Amino acid sequence: MAVQLSRRIDFPMLDMAGIAFYPRIYDLAHRFFEEALEEMCGVGYPYLIGELKIGFPVVDIKSEFHAPFRYGDTVTAKIWISKVGNKSCTWQYRFLNQKEDLLWSSEQITVCVSLIDMQSKPIPDILRKGLEAYTDE
Amino acid sequence: MAVQLSRRIDFPMLDMAGIAFYPRIYDLAHRFFEEALEEMCGVGYPYLIGELKIGFPVVDIKSEFHAPFRYGDTVTAKIWISKVGNKSCTWQYRFLNQKEDLLWSSEQITVCVSLIDMQSKPIPDILRKGLEAYTDE
Amino acid sequence: MAVQLSRRIDFPMLDMAGIAFYPRIYDLAHRFFEEALEEMCGVGYPYLIGELKIGFPVVDIKSEFHAPFRYGDTVTAKIWISKVGNKSCTWQYRFLNQKEDLLWSSEQITVCVSLIDMQSKPIPDILRKGLEAYTDE
Amino acid sequence: MAVQLSRRIDFPMLDMAGIAFYPRIYDLAHRFFEEALEEMCGVGYPYLIGELKIGFPVVDIKSEFHAPFRYGDTVTAKIWISKVGNKSCTWQYRFLNQKEDLLWSSEQITVCVSLIDMQSKPIPDILRKGLEAYTDE
Repeated sequence: MAVQLSRRIDFPMLDMAGIAFYPRIYDLAHRFFEEALEEMCGVGYPYLIGELKIGFPVVDIKSEFHAPFRYGDTVTAKIWISKVGNKSCTWQYRFLNQKEDLLWSSEQITVCVSLIDMQSKPIPDILRKGLEAYTDE
Repeated sequence: MAVQLSRRIDFPMLDMAGIAFYPRIYDLAHRFFEEALEEMCGVGYPYLIGELKIGFPVVDIKSEFHAPFRYGDTVTAKIWISKVGNKSCTWQYRFLNQKEDLLWSSEQITVCVSLIDMQSKPIPDILRKGLEAYTDE
Repeated sequence: MAVQLSRRIDFPMLDMAGIAFYPRIYDLAHRFFEEALEEMCGVGYPYLIGELKIGFPVVDIKSEFHAPFRYGDTVTAKIWISKVGNKSCTWQYRFLNQKEDLLWSSEQITVCVSLIDMQSKPIPDILRKGLEAYTDE
Repeated sequence: MAVQLSRRIDFPMLDMAGIAFYPRIYDLAHRFFEEALEEMCGVGYPYLIGELKIGFPVVDIKSEFHAPFRYGDTVTAKIWISKVGNKSCTWQYRFLNQKEDLLWSSEQITVCVSLIDMQSKPIPDILRKGLEAYTDE
C-alpha cells in the first residue's frame, strides 16, 4: 500500500534552465513526507515534534533523477515503506508527472530520535502500526 | 474582489525558533501569487513565461509581520490588486491563520517586463481585464 | 559607520530568468545580518540564540529592487543602523554589485524577543553599545 | 588531489531542531560545486552556462548523513572526482566540521548537457583536463 499525493511545481523550485533545482526536489519530498506520515499514522508531524518530542532525521539517501521536473508540471508522489526496523525506517519515493513519466526515485532511511537529547530510540507503538500498514513486505 | 487560497505551513519553512523564517514567507507569497494570477486571468504563469515571454518582477515591497507563522498552521491568503497601471500593478496580500489572526500584510509593486530584453512593457490586454476585475477601486 | 561584507551570487539564488529570485535576496540579507551583528557586537548570532536565548525577528520591511542580481555578480552589502530603540532596532541595507550599481535597498525593523516566551524585551547592554556605534545618528 | 573549501552554517540552513535541514545540505553542496569547478577548470559556472551553454545536471546521488550540522559550525568540503567518463563525471564530497568530524559524504553523477536542447554531450576538452587533474585514479 502506498500513499499518493500531488503538488504542482511552483516557480520557486526552478533553476536558470527552467527545471526544478535538485535540492528543492528533496525539499518537496519532505513536504510530501509530512503529509504521508499523517495519512499513515493519523498524527501530524507538528504533533510528533511538539508533543512527542521525536523527529525522523534522515541518515542515508539514494536517489535517481530520471527526467527533469518542468514548470507547470503536477507531481504525484507514491510513498511507501520498504522496512520498519526497531529504531529506523526505510522509505520509498516515486515521483511521476501528469503524463505518468517517472521523474525521480529515492530510498531514504530515517532514524527515530528524541529531540531532547538527539539520541536514537525505538519507534513508538502509536506510529509503528501505521507505518507497518504501508510496507510492501 | 479578492482571490482566497490556502496552504499549510510545511516543516521546510520553519527556523530554529519553530516559526516561519521570514524570507520563506515571501517564497510562500510567490506560490500564492502564481495561483492567484491563474484564477484572475485564466492563464497560468508557466504560459506567461514560456509562451508570452513576459514576467512580473517585483520592484517595491512593504510588509508588516504581525504575528508568527507556527508549524501546523494553515495559512489563508487574500490577494487583490489596489492599482493596475500601464506597465505596473500593485498587489495586496493578507495572510491569516486558521483562527483568522492576521499574520502578515504586504503591498507589492510588480512591473511587466519582456523576458527577451528585460525591458518594461504595457500589461497585455489578455491579462488586464482579469487584473482589473480584482481591483478594489 | 557601516559594516561592509561581500558574497557571490550562487546558482541556487537564481530563477528561470537567470536573476536572483527575490525571496532569496532576503535570505542573503539574513546571512549578511548574522555576519554584521558579529562585527558590530563582537558576539555571534549562534551565541545570542543558544546562550542568551534571544532573537531579533523582523516586524516591518520596506524594500526597493533597483536592478537585477545576475549570476556571476559579487554583491557588497553596506549595513548600518538608523535607530536603536529600547526593544527595537532599525537596520539599513544597501546591496551593490561589482560595478557599484545599487541593486537593492531595504529598511528593516527587528524586535528583541526572548526565545523562552517569545515576548519582546529590552536590547541587552552587551549588544547595545555595538549597535549604537553603527548608527548614523 | 581534492579541492578544499569552507563556509559557515548560516541561520537559513537550520530547521526547528537547530540543525541543518537536509535538502539545504545539497544546496550547500551545489554552492561548493560551483567554486570547485572554477578552481579545477579555471572557468566559472556562469561562463559555462552563459557562454558555453552547457550544464551538469545530476542524475544519481548517494549520501550518508553521519552527524548533524550545527549552528555556528564551519564546514570544510573536500571535493574530488572519482571518474571522468565521456559525457558524465562522478563527484566525491566529504563535509567536515571545525573539529574534523565527518558530517556528510556523498557520491554524485552529473551528465554534461547542452542547455539548448537538453541533450547529453561529451565533456568539452577545456574542462576535461581540469577535471582529470582532480581524479583519484
